[in-house]
Amino acid sequence: MAKPFDMDCPVSKTLDVVGERWTLLILRDLLLFGPRRFKDFGDSLKGITPNTLSARIKGLEARGIIASRLYTDHPPRAEYALTDKGLALGPVLMALKDWGEIFG
Amino acid sequence: MAKPFDMDCPVSKTLDVVGERWTLLILRDLLLFGPRRFKDFGDSLKGITPNTLSARIKGLEARGIIASRLYTDHPPRAEYALTDKGLALGPVLMALKDWGEIFG
Repeated sequence: MAKPFDMDCPVSKTLDVVGERWTLLILRDLLLFGPRRFKDFGDSLKGITPNTLSARIKGLEARGIIASRLYTDHPPRAEYALTDKGLALGPVLMALKDWGEIFG
Repeated sequence: MAKPFDMDCPVSKTLDVVGERWTLLILRDLLLFGPRRFKDFGDSLKGITPNTLSARIKGLEARGIIASRLYTDHPPRAEYALTDKGLALGPVLMALKDWGEIFG
């Protein structure tokens, strides 16, 4: 049988980047609030461990979905914001929201 | 700080149902192909184990996203199809596909 969906499927490619619950909730926060600090995520993502949050943020940065910048030098503190590539995930989050409002 | 997104967030509610990679790929197959048998999923979802596939199917059935019916009695064989509630997840899959086509 043909395998039309293995590595070439665009849904699968997107899920390689955002196919994990915490990742999508991090993106939700950034879409709703704009730039966020590490601590801000911890406040709204109940149950996430610092290690997991740190790993998810690093993964999103490595894939160009979010970018960090220092908002103060003393002490050095970073905040995270969506790139254009990350902003383009807005419709995914909107579709998740729409369904949840009706059926969630 | 207020916690506006814990259990009341509609994105979070949707992710409670479909916030897992295999689950979304099962839904993709059903949206693309219509009713599918257990074996059909195994053919297109490379790397999923039968136990995981079975667990994901049961979870989707329990939440009313898919429904099973016997398509033959001798031997008994079931196929799975989206319910109306499951069909309503189409925009989520379309948004994942759109992003993957551009950035994946």
